[in-house]
Amino acid sequence: MLPFCTDSRDGNTAGGTPSGNTGNATAAPHRLGTMIEQNNALPEDDDSFNPSASSLAGQVDRGVMDELLSIRSSIDNIDATLVFLLAERFKATQKVGVLKATHKLPAGDPGREAAQIARLRRLAEDAHLDPAFAEKFLNFIISEVIRHHEAIAEDHQISSQQA
Amino acid sequence: MLPFCTDSRDGNTAGGTPSGNTGNATAAPHRLGTMIEQNNALPEDDDSFNPSASSLAGQVDRGVMDELLSIRSSIDNIDATLVFLLAERFKATQKVGVLKATHKLPAGDPGREAAQIARLRRLAEDAHLDPAFAEKFLNFIISEVIRHHEAIAEDHQISSQQA
Repeated sequence: MLPFCTDSRDGNTAGGTPSGNTGNATAAPHRLGTMIEQNNALPEDDDSFNPSASSLAGQVDRGVMDELLSIRSSIDNIDATLVFLLAERFKATQKVGVLKATHKLPAGDPGREAAQIARLRRLAEDAHLDPAFAEKFLNFIISEVIRHHEAIAEDHQISSQQA
Repeated sequence: MLPFCTDSRDGNTAGGTPSGNTGNATAAPHRLGTMIEQNNALPEDDDSFNPSASSLAGQVDRGVMDELLSIRSSIDNIDATLVFLLAERFKATQKVGVLKATHKLPAGDPGREAAQIARLRRLAEDAHLDPAFAEKFLNFIISEVIRHHEAIAEDHQISSQQA
């Protein structure tokens, strides 16, 4: 989030800059013009996340929308945590990939995967999460991991051949 | 976990029962025999997770396997966290589903989803996670959530009709 808020409708910005006292009433319009120019030159933060973004905006009762946005704010926090946790998981599987490539081990390990799936299904039950979804989720992750392992093994083979 | 473990092969149970002392030395061989029988009858906990489970067992150098198991232990911790975090996320989206069903709002919200995807891609970059994977991951979750929302809406409609 930039310290200046941009109104996306007209590109104007406002807020954050303390307005100086020129001590000269006639200079005011010029200074204002300069400020607007400066503000127009500020980069538009097209990338900033709008937690209120919704195709339902304006079609829903204000109280309902407030309740929706409050729950969504928790979902956004959880999603950020999920992304950072997944990044940590891929750092770990990357190490496994290098270990497997170095020792010419296969990318997949069906015995390990079966044990993981059975465990996650049980954990899901404890957490009141659909075990079938937990299994689908792990398979989704594992297929990505195996793709990474295969790519690492290929890179390793190429660099071994070149060495 | 049951307090008594059941051996699924023969239905015997063991454990938790204090073995009595006969006070008779000649009874010892018999007692030992009984204990061995009991131990043989000890349940295999078929459900327990074996963190060393691997199709590579016995085919890999001990040091390499130890390193692999050490990394896998971190992956197992991360996976448990992911499951509990996903459960929490579905609790939140369940609330959204009820809110949407109550106010007859559509299950999906393309404006919200686009904002979520753009945000998660940026967070993924910060976390050195492949942004394309983060997007695929969120789409995977969202499609499950929409399926839930539709089911909640259907249930809500049925109970409204019955009321």
